[in-house]
Amino acid sequence: MSDEKITPRSQDFSAWYNEVVQRAELADYAPVRGCMIIRPYGYALWENLQRELDRRFKATGHKNAYFPLFIPMSFIQKEAQHVEGFSPELAVVTHGGGEKLEEPLVVRPTSETVIGHMFKQWIKSYRDLPLLINQWANVVRWELRPRLFLRTLEFLWQEGHTAHATEAEAEEETLKMLNVYVDVAQNEAAIPVIAGRKSESEKFAGALRSYTIEAMMGDRRALQAGTSHNLGQNFAKAFEIQYLDKNNQLQHCWTTSWGMSTRMIGAIIMAHGDDQGLILPPRLAPIQVIVVPIWKSGNENEKTNVLEGVERIKRALGERVRLEVDAREEYSPGWRFNEWELRGVPLRIEIGPKDIQKSQVVLARRETKEKLSVSQDQLAERVLALLDEMQKNLFERAKKFRDENTVELDDYERFREFMEGEGSRGFVRAYWCGARECEAQIKTETKATTRCIPLEQPRSSGRCIYCGKEAKEQAIFAKAY
Amino acid sequence: MSDEKITPRSQDFSAWYNEVVQRAELADYAPVRGCMIIRPYGYALWENLQRELDRRFKATGHKNAYFPLFIPMSFIQKEAQHVEGFSPELAVVTHGGGEKLEEPLVVRPTSETVIGHMFKQWIKSYRDLPLLINQWANVVRWELRPRLFLRTLEFLWQEGHTAHATEAEAEEETLKMLNVYVDVAQNEAAIPVIAGRKSESEKFAGALRSYTIEAMMGDRRALQAGTSHNLGQNFAKAFEIQYLDKNNQLQHCWTTSWGMSTRMIGAIIMAHGDDQGLILPPRLAPIQVIVVPIWKSGNENEKTNVLEGVERIKRALGERVRLEVDAREEYSPGWRFNEWELRGVPLRIEIGPKDIQKSQVVLARRETKEKLSVSQDQLAERVLALLDEMQKNLFERAKKFRDENTVELDDYERFREFMEGEGSRGFVRAYWCGARECEAQIKTETKATTRCIPLEQPRSSGRCIYCGKEAKEQAIFAKAY
Repeated sequence: MSDEKITPRSQDFSAWYNEVVQRAELADYAPVRGCMIIRPYGYALWENLQRELDRRFKATGHKNAYFPLFIPMSFIQKEAQHVEGFSPELAVVTHGGGEKLEEPLVVRPTSETVIGHMFKQWIKSYRDLPLLINQWANVVRWELRPRLFLRTLEFLWQEGHTAHATEAEAEEETLKMLNVYVDVAQNEAAIPVIAGRKSESEKFAGALRSYTIEAMMGDRRALQAGTSHNLGQNFAKAFEIQYLDKNNQLQHCWTTSWGMSTRMIGAIIMAHGDDQGLILPPRLAPIQVIVVPIWKSGNENEKTNVLEGVERIKRALGERVRLEVDAREEYSPGWRFNEWELRGVPLRIEIGPKDIQKSQVVLARRETKEKLSVSQDQLAERVLALLDEMQKNLFERAKKFRDENTVELDDYERFREFMEGEGSRGFVRAYWCGARECEAQIKTETKATTRCIPLEQPRSSGRCIYCGKEAKEQAIFAKAY
Repeated sequence: MSDEKITPRSQDFSAWYNEVVQRAELADYAPVRGCMIIRPYGYALWENLQRELDRRFKATGHKNAYFPLFIPMSFIQKEAQHVEGFSPELAVVTHGGGEKLEEPLVVRPTSETVIGHMFKQWIKSYRDLPLLINQWANVVRWELRPRLFLRTLEFLWQEGHTAHATEAEAEEETLKMLNVYVDVAQNEAAIPVIAGRKSESEKFAGALRSYTIEAMMGDRRALQAGTSHNLGQNFAKAFEIQYLDKNNQLQHCWTTSWGMSTRMIGAIIMAHGDDQGLILPPRLAPIQVIVVPIWKSGNENEKTNVLEGVERIKRALGERVRLEVDAREEYSPGWRFNEWELRGVPLRIEIGPKDIQKSQVVLARRETKEKLSVSQDQLAERVLALLDEMQKNLFERAKKFRDENTVELDDYERFREFMEGEGSRGFVRAYWCGARECEAQIKTETKATTRCIPLEQPRSSGRCIYCGKEAKEQAIFAKAY
């Protein structure tokens, strides 16, 4: 870590983001353009997110499997909308083992096609349904404007793929998994999200209906943090995924897919961070508590006493929270405080000779900067309670910020004013008639896109913000990542 | 599952293997030649193996990270032996985003090069050492004769990569991780292994010294189940991985790498399976206990009583072992017994109306076929004890088999006789002078290769099995996968 200050968020949010990602050692640019290296600290955050997702997938009956990285080009072409959507983003293997391949292989951008091909072999009768599969994998999409975590050529994700006997069951699954994402985003990552349906133009290439969770970042722009798609019978027809129903009739299945990726780490950084750097939600933080012992350099007696105090802290807390000790003598206490603030550790424990005398420690909360003295015999319960409180506080703070920066508008001129300029002033909730033309015009004129049509809608109807025709639903409009 | 019998192992081991893999639903062929789909049952086995490895990596101070799938072709060419070894196996991406790339990208066959490139950026001083990293990833090697799990074009693995200040520390790390593999193979997978050094001709492309664990499969052939490499300063020099030592002098690091892959699942299948199918070691089995309730079809009273008994079993065991219930009425008890035997579940609990009356259940051990009646109030402790016993028994059985099929020879004619024919008669332990020519001649004449030079050696020296010159060490020779 260098000692240079990070660019303030208010000055240049994008520069702030890049500096935080690299200086907190979450990720680094790879030698190949647009690819990234997820460093141990960033990967530990990803592992914690994975664990929370995986637990919920298994609890809802899904099983993990693994499908191949390489997909025949002909597979991608079987579903018309799918090939149209993904063609510009493909990486193609043309040579293998020193020879030119007869059919080029696509490096998977997503796996509906190859999984559809396998579902066809595995599903024979209604007894094989529902088939509930998840895959943890890397995927590749040729991004032209890569950003660490947000848009990289290769990224890590999970992709769920399920097959059902009826449309209703597929829709139920699609919404169930959307709700898993809401749960993980809000209760683990402390990020409030709006769950809603994607517009026709924003939906997944090949889906009947796409759902999304949309979050507001610290610069008031929107970030799509997870999506869940009801694929209807589109892929089932393209890949002949059929089953014999109870009456021995051959029927096409209804399939779904849903995914959350390493992009979520970008969301955590941008939803909670401040000018000092990262602020990590306690439930996902790789290190929840950092202990910084302090003694006068060269005073061996002090050092011994303080390090004994550290051992007592480890005994009291080590099994109950993710705790690390930074006892590096070559760095001053202040430098170490800054470093762990930059890296977003929720709680710091400072312990020095005076604290030892008083049988206390100093706790410093990352998200409020508050400091408080706590007696050592109350340490464990206070730390656990504080971590819970901080988790809730981060969520409430992000929710307040989002709500303060969300307006409901019914006048297009005010909408334009709101969206003017390079930055973003937040989310607009407005009635929209659903016409692709209105959406496209709004995008051209204001750079704002429909983020979603929220599942929760007002009871009344209104008039389209663009064309003024009657509109049944509101949409969220925003500039987005 | 079809009702057809599996080909007996003695008749055609290779056919037996392929049938077991597919009928036990561990894996399936992918639409792309040489690639595989790891089905949920196989993937759950892999997850259990991953958990055991990952726990040990973290306990020895390693951190997980993630490096890119794509490596510039020029990187592969920087280490002379490395490019020579891997060139014939590369998959190459030549097009991305609809355009031809200026420099082709290699799909990683292993990551020493790109990780070396990053180590160069991250390591500045002796304080940054040792750097202990592990990656869970997919890799691609263009295999010409693919076999499910054993040799597939794409496979899953972990690759550890570490950098150290001295040769001694790198060697210590290499052997420490080899011992982690020994531990996992023997104590988790119940497969006895011989730890040893690879010969010069069998070592990793770019390594100073390679170590391996070698296991004997059910057809007496050897399988390399994990490798650990001391890379010396080869990659450090190719990628300029340097550090300032305590005297402020610039030094090249010493690096290591080590890996275990989904191939290990093939080892588990071939080390333990029998003519009925898989036999899984309890510690890694996705399902440790399968409960098969039995009642007369249509007798609702019996059904209710038996299913209540099943609930009691679940309450007693559900939290303590990985347990599933197969209450499918459409399949006879005998059919269900066969299915779970084929799938290698260590222990079956049968419970029918008579068992309910007697407050007992019947336990059936997969590996010995023994059946025993156990009273329901002793069930939990008996099941836990049995699973432990079966784990040990599987290991002992495999060890006995290996030892019975290992001979020590000092006469080349007897060596040739032993190795004759298409199959394998096992391992030969023989003195070898270390000359590449002797090793190559033996391979040409007998198809046996040096599997390793075991770490444990007899105290005396002997004469090379091929040339008769004095030899300090014995090697293990065998036909291998």
